[in-house]
Amino acid sequence: MDRQPRLRDRGVTIGALPAGSANAITDVAGVTVGHVTLSDGKVQTGVTAVRPHPGHAFRDKLPAAVHVVNGFGKSVGLMQLAELGTLETPVVLTNTLSVGTAATALVRHMLDATPEIGHSTGTVNPVVMECNDGAWLNDIRGLHVTEAHVLAALERTETAVAEGNVGAGTGMSCYGLAGGIGTSSRIVARGPRSYTVGALTLCNMGRMEDLRVDGRPVGRLVAGRIAAEKAERQAGEQGGREQGSIIVLLATDAPLDARQLRRLAVRGGAGIGRTGTHFGSGSGDVVLAFATAETVPHAMAEDPETVRRSLHEDAMDPLFRAAIEATEEAILNALLAARPTRGKQGRKRRSLAEFTDLVRG
Amino acid sequence: MDRQPRLRDRGVTIGALPAGSANAITDVAGVTVGHVTLSDGKVQTGVTAVRPHPGHAFRDKLPAAVHVVNGFGKSVGLMQLAELGTLETPVVLTNTLSVGTAATALVRHMLDATPEIGHSTGTVNPVVMECNDGAWLNDIRGLHVTEAHVLAALERTETAVAEGNVGAGTGMSCYGLAGGIGTSSRIVARGPRSYTVGALTLCNMGRMEDLRVDGRPVGRLVAGRIAAEKAERQAGEQGGREQGSIIVLLATDAPLDARQLRRLAVRGGAGIGRTGTHFGSGSGDVVLAFATAETVPHAMAEDPETVRRSLHEDAMDPLFRAAIEATEEAILNALLAARPTRGKQGRKRRSLAEFTDLVRG
Amino acid sequence: MDRQPRLRDRGVTIGALPAGSANAITDVAGVTVGHVTLSDGKVQTGVTAVRPHPGHAFRDKLPAAVHVVNGFGKSVGLMQLAELGTLETPVVLTNTLSVGTAATALVRHMLDATPEIGHSTGTVNPVVMECNDGAWLNDIRGLHVTEAHVLAALERTETAVAEGNVGAGTGMSCYGLAGGIGTSSRIVARGPRSYTVGALTLCNMGRMEDLRVDGRPVGRLVAGRIAAEKAERQAGEQGGREQGSIIVLLATDAPLDARQLRRLAVRGGAGIGRTGTHFGSGSGDVVLAFATAETVPHAMAEDPETVRRSLHEDAMDPLFRAAIEATEEAILNALLAARPTRGKQGRKRRSLAEFTDLVRG
Amino acid sequence: MDRQPRLRDRGVTIGALPAGSANAITDVAGVTVGHVTLSDGKVQTGVTAVRPHPGHAFRDKLPAAVHVVNGFGKSVGLMQLAELGTLETPVVLTNTLSVGTAATALVRHMLDATPEIGHSTGTVNPVVMECNDGAWLNDIRGLHVTEAHVLAALERTETAVAEGNVGAGTGMSCYGLAGGIGTSSRIVARGPRSYTVGALTLCNMGRMEDLRVDGRPVGRLVAGRIAAEKAERQAGEQGGREQGSIIVLLATDAPLDARQLRRLAVRGGAGIGRTGTHFGSGSGDVVLAFATAETVPHAMAEDPETVRRSLHEDAMDPLFRAAIEATEEAILNALLAARPTRGKQGRKRRSLAEFTDLVRG
Repeated sequence: MDRQPRLRDRGVTIGALPAGSANAITDVAGVTVGHVTLSDGKVQTGVTAVRPHPGHAFRDKLPAAVHVVNGFGKSVGLMQLAELGTLETPVVLTNTLSVGTAATALVRHMLDATPEIGHSTGTVNPVVMECNDGAWLNDIRGLHVTEAHVLAALERTETAVAEGNVGAGTGMSCYGLAGGIGTSSRIVARGPRSYTVGALTLCNMGRMEDLRVDGRPVGRLVAGRIAAEKAERQAGEQGGREQGSIIVLLATDAPLDARQLRRLAVRGGAGIGRTGTHFGSGSGDVVLAFATAETVPHAMAEDPETVRRSLHEDAMDPLFRAAIEATEEAILNALLAARPTRGKQGRKRRSLAEFTDLVRG
Repeated sequence: MDRQPRLRDRGVTIGALPAGSANAITDVAGVTVGHVTLSDGKVQTGVTAVRPHPGHAFRDKLPAAVHVVNGFGKSVGLMQLAELGTLETPVVLTNTLSVGTAATALVRHMLDATPEIGHSTGTVNPVVMECNDGAWLNDIRGLHVTEAHVLAALERTETAVAEGNVGAGTGMSCYGLAGGIGTSSRIVARGPRSYTVGALTLCNMGRMEDLRVDGRPVGRLVAGRIAAEKAERQAGEQGGREQGSIIVLLATDAPLDARQLRRLAVRGGAGIGRTGTHFGSGSGDVVLAFATAETVPHAMAEDPETVRRSLHEDAMDPLFRAAIEATEEAILNALLAARPTRGKQGRKRRSLAEFTDLVRG
Repeated sequence: MDRQPRLRDRGVTIGALPAGSANAITDVAGVTVGHVTLSDGKVQTGVTAVRPHPGHAFRDKLPAAVHVVNGFGKSVGLMQLAELGTLETPVVLTNTLSVGTAATALVRHMLDATPEIGHSTGTVNPVVMECNDGAWLNDIRGLHVTEAHVLAALERTETAVAEGNVGAGTGMSCYGLAGGIGTSSRIVARGPRSYTVGALTLCNMGRMEDLRVDGRPVGRLVAGRIAAEKAERQAGEQGGREQGSIIVLLATDAPLDARQLRRLAVRGGAGIGRTGTHFGSGSGDVVLAFATAETVPHAMAEDPETVRRSLHEDAMDPLFRAAIEATEEAILNALLAARPTRGKQGRKRRSLAEFTDLVRG
Repeated sequence: MDRQPRLRDRGVTIGALPAGSANAITDVAGVTVGHVTLSDGKVQTGVTAVRPHPGHAFRDKLPAAVHVVNGFGKSVGLMQLAELGTLETPVVLTNTLSVGTAATALVRHMLDATPEIGHSTGTVNPVVMECNDGAWLNDIRGLHVTEAHVLAALERTETAVAEGNVGAGTGMSCYGLAGGIGTSSRIVARGPRSYTVGALTLCNMGRMEDLRVDGRPVGRLVAGRIAAEKAERQAGEQGGREQGSIIVLLATDAPLDARQLRRLAVRGGAGIGRTGTHFGSGSGDVVLAFATAETVPHAMAEDPETVRRSLHEDAMDPLFRAAIEATEEAILNALLAARPTRGKQGRKRRSLAEFTDLVRG
């Protein structure tokens, strides 16, 4: 893949903590990501699948939690995840109106791999999250995502993570520019331990004027230049209210329980905020966090007790910082990786990469 | 329809408040209910649609709220409903693994009626709720519900409400007996005002021994008789843990806001508890409440303010009582309306109506 | 102490699970309870202290969670308990308007035992819970509870638990009768393990007509007899709306984490509901649950990780059942232990023990 | 009062919306603020009282909501506020361990003004919020705040708002500098309407290196200069983990209901984040929002219904933006108003005002 320079490649570093080797969510061992991209004229959408670990997601669940910053969104599976504190499927990202199709495909995927579901055990809780790419670029009413697309994304997950307008990010807009998928990671040392926190973001929120890069008002500068060019007069218009949204996935190998993961997810929300958005009323801003340190078996053994690794609460602060930094950088990576895009009705989005001089400051 | 005698017809009355004229959720003016029933050998499932008012659900939303008693469930649309406090589609009930299909069908239904969605306005939030009929009777892995079934249920809503193993209730089990759909209502007078609270329940929870009818341990008596008959030795087995669940819809014409509706929904949970369940770990017990008194327009006028009717908090108590009574009676109506059923692998469920002498006490 | 016969002594058993040896919250090893009773004319109030374990509550915290059924109450300390999932002080129960005094006394108690608070470490989170005894019997405006009373209750905790109108329960009314403190416990076996769940309830809610004893409408019968006696015409009046409330403390030696304890606390709410209340709008109905299996040290060691015992989610169901049964029985024990009481303005409350024939059924 | 130049006076403006005439929470008509400052050697603490409207807070309540960003705090009264959606007393701010004393004093204040409480009506829900000034400057173990101090603060509320280390802010530290009380406001126009949003913040959180002023990393610059001066080597140390916290009060004259106010409070949290904090594990970060547009009467009339002004959800976005901007600027105003301080053990805090050149950028 012909990768665009990322934020660090352009000379901007977010925060103080070191990034992992790939600076990606896949720095958390076992996490893989797959994309299916649908980009053809008015069809600008797709699917991104994130496998939380290489094993069987249902039989070996992971501790997980969710934080809803603003609930104008249609994610599926969050109620059970919150109750039981576990994730038992891959996470599928797609456009808002394809959530039902993605949920059905994910159910089929799990049924195929798990003959006991619906026979000797209960049901499965598919987790699907979304943003609305129909606000600007994609013909979302066309419901172009099929079950086959979802299954393909699940099958092609890998450790390399393509960014920008790929997969679920294909038709997304962010701060009035081309948006989509971004990722980043941080390493935290604590006494004899070292932990990784990784973020993957599906970015579709914000007004151009609000964009901040490491605190600097880059969006205002970009908007100013565009206005001066008298090109794309409406580039800064995100359209209306419902058109925002951002999904953040946080992975960590620290042995956090569901309560601690919810706290981590709250910091994902703080990371979003650092890029400038005011969390609009019509935005679905949701953070899902999971921990890979230990799995939770579906089946109970004869002895209902096990012992599990547990992290002291005083060790949370550096993880919080890592979640904020990784989320912020993932969003900016998405913006820089996204290529200029055309979609329905000839609409366009420019790329932040066209304004690298402004990003660099 | 050849209707079974309901609880009151059999001489048992729940609580002290009077019921509405039909003793059904449709006593709340404007609410209608439609069923599609799939009952053929191992296929024992279906769809129930509830229209909250006769107008356009998206353009004229209703205040709404949700209360999750136990979140082992896969309902769709609750996050946005909680954030914005509004319901903007009919509510569709079906089996657990058909939630994705139902969501897509409901999206299509809304897109057809609302050309502006995805063009000049944002997306729509479909609300789909479910129980797991695959635990005993239905071949849930077969994914037998199609989008056409969902659309048909939406098209045939009416004020008459069939109960028992119909629609989404077709393959449900409740307290080890045939379960399904039940309904009831209450009338509350307060000063110069009179309000109706209606409940519709999709019942699929509980172990036989736990069933209470107006406080009496009818489940133990039924289980005892069945054991004595040496028939259906496993009738009391609900199967495993995940197999429960109950969905309660509460409608009212009192002018409640979303916060008050959440409080009302909590009392729906109390009504469930009165029938004896201990809200098992694997049960998805969810209550959704909506108010028809005033609609919330999708589009904002030039003046962002309107005036709306509001109910004083001190007037909530009789509504709480109504919600508990109607929920409890709706569950018992479901049990009495459900006919003896056969499903996959020759499995059977008997009907509580076979034990009317025990119900009557 | 001259103990009244409890519910079981009167021939009524709640549920199917066996009780612990004392049928009290103190069957959970390490839990102790102390009362200070103020009963003199119009002063009918007091303090009850519950120590969660015999060690240092701040340095060795316990996993804990809270569930608010209806939040018309003034409990202190629940926000931090919910965030961190730990209890770090004894729990103090008292009347509504004495919560501030109790919190200050509990702070002093903790400061005395913990010189590092406010110096080398941060602050302490006192947990104080309450009901309103001023609705009928107590001169609550007099603020008769002093810090010395609170400290005395903390100093005299023991494993024997006095019930009825003692301690914080002195001036409480429940279902129109004398209310107060009750307790009960259950033993649950699961594979090779055995766990105890104990409940302590401070009971001040409900209208007489609503009282159920093991499902039977005993309250209606009591109200009927009282009406027939033409005595205490207003006995069934709880007064007004705000005057209810019930606090439930659940203790267990099962190794539950905070998320699981919250789920357990929800079932405490279900246990309340079985006694008949409809959770009035003006009632503060709160359940706090804690687990003694393992402590959470305040100070982090060099290695931020430890291993902790963990219970599989499938083992929760019998604990849920235990929480419901113990809560229900604790409330009924409170009613039966409470003696007929006189308070401010010559107001009286009769005792359910006067109606033992109706209780027994 | 000899007022320090505020952020705007020093040439930095936050956001794009205009401020109100006083750029203070009291720009929302009816809101008043009073301080009692205790500053004498090791005693560095105090009380701040905020009256939400000039009338009787209990008889005429205001819609209100709370958002807990991080719940390591000891605020009182939030459970009932969340349940009923109303504020029925002034809000009192003080140090963490004086919350009980403040609650009792506030109860007394309300009892004196409201003879019906505890007689013909129920109890009152005092709201007290806090930060921990004992982490650095104040002898918090001394419990120096008395009921008289609280009553005095309640009696001296006025529209002029002193900022910095006054009242509850006296001994607070923020970003390693002197912290305390700050305020700001914004005006929002929407169609024919104009609304004010005001913020008052009690600031006690953050590490120096994290401070951002309008996005710029001013904290790093300040820390660098201090290090260069080799003065106050530990100035950047906030001490330990529990020692943070920030309380934000948001007032508005827009006719928001409790659900909408909770959404507004979430944006107060976003405003905190813009100043750089990562919401440490030991920080109590809480936002309380209330609306003055219409009061909610305590007593219900014969007709339980009223009509109330209501704001369309699409009008929320500018209010969200206002809440973020006002919160961010209030925090910075607190830092600039706070004077260099000495407290217990000779500890010092410098003032951000000493670094005005860095603030200005």
